[in-house]
Amino acid sequence: MTTLPRKHLFDLPEGVIYLDGNSLGPLPRAVAPHLAQVVGTQWGQHLITGWNVDGWMEQPLRVGNLIAPLIGAPEGSVIMGDTLSIKVYQALSAALAMRPDRRVILSDSGNFPTDLYMAEGLIRQLDHGHELRVVAPEAVEDAITEDIAAVMITQVDYRSGRMHDMTRITARAQAAGAVTIWDLAHSAGAVPVDLDGSGCEFAVGCTYKYLNGGPGAPAFIYIRPDLADQAQPALSGWMGHDAPFAFELGYRPATGIERMRVGTPPVLQMSALEVALRAWEGVDMADLRATQIALSELFIAEVEAKCPGLTLASPRDPQARGSQVSFAFEHGYAAMQALIARGVIGDFRAPDIMRFGFTPLYLDEHDIRRATAIMAEVMEGKLWDDPAYQKRGRVT
Amino acid sequence: MTTLPRKHLFDLPEGVIYLDGNSLGPLPRAVAPHLAQVVGTQWGQHLITGWNVDGWMEQPLRVGNLIAPLIGAPEGSVIMGDTLSIKVYQALSAALAMRPDRRVILSDSGNFPTDLYMAEGLIRQLDHGHELRVVAPEAVEDAITEDIAAVMITQVDYRSGRMHDMTRITARAQAAGAVTIWDLAHSAGAVPVDLDGSGCEFAVGCTYKYLNGGPGAPAFIYIRPDLADQAQPALSGWMGHDAPFAFELGYRPATGIERMRVGTPPVLQMSALEVALRAWEGVDMADLRATQIALSELFIAEVEAKCPGLTLASPRDPQARGSQVSFAFEHGYAAMQALIARGVIGDFRAPDIMRFGFTPLYLDEHDIRRATAIMAEVMEGKLWDDPAYQKRGRVT
Repeated sequence: MTTLPRKHLFDLPEGVIYLDGNSLGPLPRAVAPHLAQVVGTQWGQHLITGWNVDGWMEQPLRVGNLIAPLIGAPEGSVIMGDTLSIKVYQALSAALAMRPDRRVILSDSGNFPTDLYMAEGLIRQLDHGHELRVVAPEAVEDAITEDIAAVMITQVDYRSGRMHDMTRITARAQAAGAVTIWDLAHSAGAVPVDLDGSGCEFAVGCTYKYLNGGPGAPAFIYIRPDLADQAQPALSGWMGHDAPFAFELGYRPATGIERMRVGTPPVLQMSALEVALRAWEGVDMADLRATQIALSELFIAEVEAKCPGLTLASPRDPQARGSQVSFAFEHGYAAMQALIARGVIGDFRAPDIMRFGFTPLYLDEHDIRRATAIMAEVMEGKLWDDPAYQKRGRVT
Repeated sequence: MTTLPRKHLFDLPEGVIYLDGNSLGPLPRAVAPHLAQVVGTQWGQHLITGWNVDGWMEQPLRVGNLIAPLIGAPEGSVIMGDTLSIKVYQALSAALAMRPDRRVILSDSGNFPTDLYMAEGLIRQLDHGHELRVVAPEAVEDAITEDIAAVMITQVDYRSGRMHDMTRITARAQAAGAVTIWDLAHSAGAVPVDLDGSGCEFAVGCTYKYLNGGPGAPAFIYIRPDLADQAQPALSGWMGHDAPFAFELGYRPATGIERMRVGTPPVLQMSALEVALRAWEGVDMADLRATQIALSELFIAEVEAKCPGLTLASPRDPQARGSQVSFAFEHGYAAMQALIARGVIGDFRAPDIMRFGFTPLYLDEHDIRRATAIMAEVMEGKLWDDPAYQKRGRVT
């Protein structure tokens, strides 16, 4: 098993095995000193001139260009800002405007709920009889019919890790005349993604998971370059204007992906992300994927051998799943609390899913063996039966 | 002249007189150590559990409750997130939904352009024949007719500092059956605001100006409490769902102002703001306003006495303007560069406005006297005529 020698770039707590990079990536060591400089020098000393002298204004595109190679996107096609929910809204709105004669948005029940919620809100607002059609993940391909305006899919299922074939679904959608929007929340930095090769029209994603940008790190949006100048910005803010500092009374969208900017960018948060992305310099996504599959295969084998109460809820074929592996267990919430109390951090998704992420930037085989040994102790000893582990917080 | 004894709470560069708090507030000393703790301990050590143990999840409302008293809003009526542009969109969208039989949005040409741009985008998207009617600031009151759905006004003009009478315009709008949306970008932390007393329906604002939250700090939105449960969220994200962690497939808005949350909140950026707001503890807005008026009256008197080339572009009556004072000058851009090079930081707004903000948290009479002495040198010596000051960056 190869390992990626990057553990030293992260500041992980002593004794913790962090299998929750699919929810919030850990702290890269470079962040704290860089953010101290951004706060103390850029904000504190340069004040308003930071927009010029420290390149704050260009940061959303500059950081987008760091993410682009990780998702197979050309330079200048990805821009940062806002949250993933907002980027879903922008992409979906622009996609529907490209198919004015159609009224159906197709998605699947494995999509992260906020994508569906944002679509609902948009449909209500448009009030032109659009429909959100949600099918089972397995049924997506057959559901792509000629009434579909947009296919909006999260590539990797947030619960099970089940992965859609982006290229095949995109081709099928395009053959039916639909526009595709891929949510890469659980793909970017997790699996090789080839946006350019897939030919898809839109992609969106977040950066606080596998890209380790910190809690609330900004989201990204990609538009296929030949379409960017046709994309109609629903959220037509001043930073997406062609001349934001001319302060014209009327909106004129900027050229290309810059039109997907909305308001003033979150400089502190974006700076944390920008320096966090250094951990990806020189990483070959194929290497990462191979290592991740080796780690997750080892994990599954060990859990199935040692924890008979748990049922694999992810695809068994590693090519059909993303970075995370999920197990179903009736007492999953409490069992996860028991694991966390013992330093093995995964998370729980209702109703019964224990979810574990495999992130080779900072995990190795030794971690997996230790984690599964602790899981075996929890399961054998029914340690989840402790009342202290039953009470639910809002996030696990 | 009274001064507010808060200069020690800010980390201002040596030799700088900062008259640009209306664009980006300076760095409060409490930010750097707090942010280091949020990054190192909350993110680095607590990892995903930070959402529970460090109260990240409740932060948007908790910080909203710190801002509420500064703008005359009751506890629980203000929530943070996103950018001002997004909050404008949310408020305007909800306002239009409250007046389905009307089609006109009234605004004025002194409104910040992004508000107008966002309205344009919303109108295009709704595609139900709405109209954005933009009149001169002086003409707003007479333009409130019975076809107006929403009156969307920035209380303090970003260029001239001219201030609208919130209570009078709100009453007039309501008498005509219109909903009001107040943009407090240049009001919150700048002038006393009484949202509750005005009875207005919506207010929005940013926090990187007078509230000193840092570059890209999150925005806020207020909904009058009796209306919050009727406000239809256009941007219906998971954090505004009634049960975000139930991961239901359908959207149900949360009770009250929480429904205006959209995606995952920017924890690092919001933490900087949260601690920056400590500088406001115990500040009486009436005191602040009196001091600010004294400072700006002194400034105007000194500039008019010493710099005959500059023409006051703000209302002469201090009650009719907000915190900032603007002067028109043909060579305003270059003159501002010359001032900045000499440590007096204001900003420039096209075509010819030199803008100066008076923020008594960290400015005193001595600063104003020194700043105007330097302005006199720049003007008498025509120091703006240096070629180095002619070239324009994107932000000044």
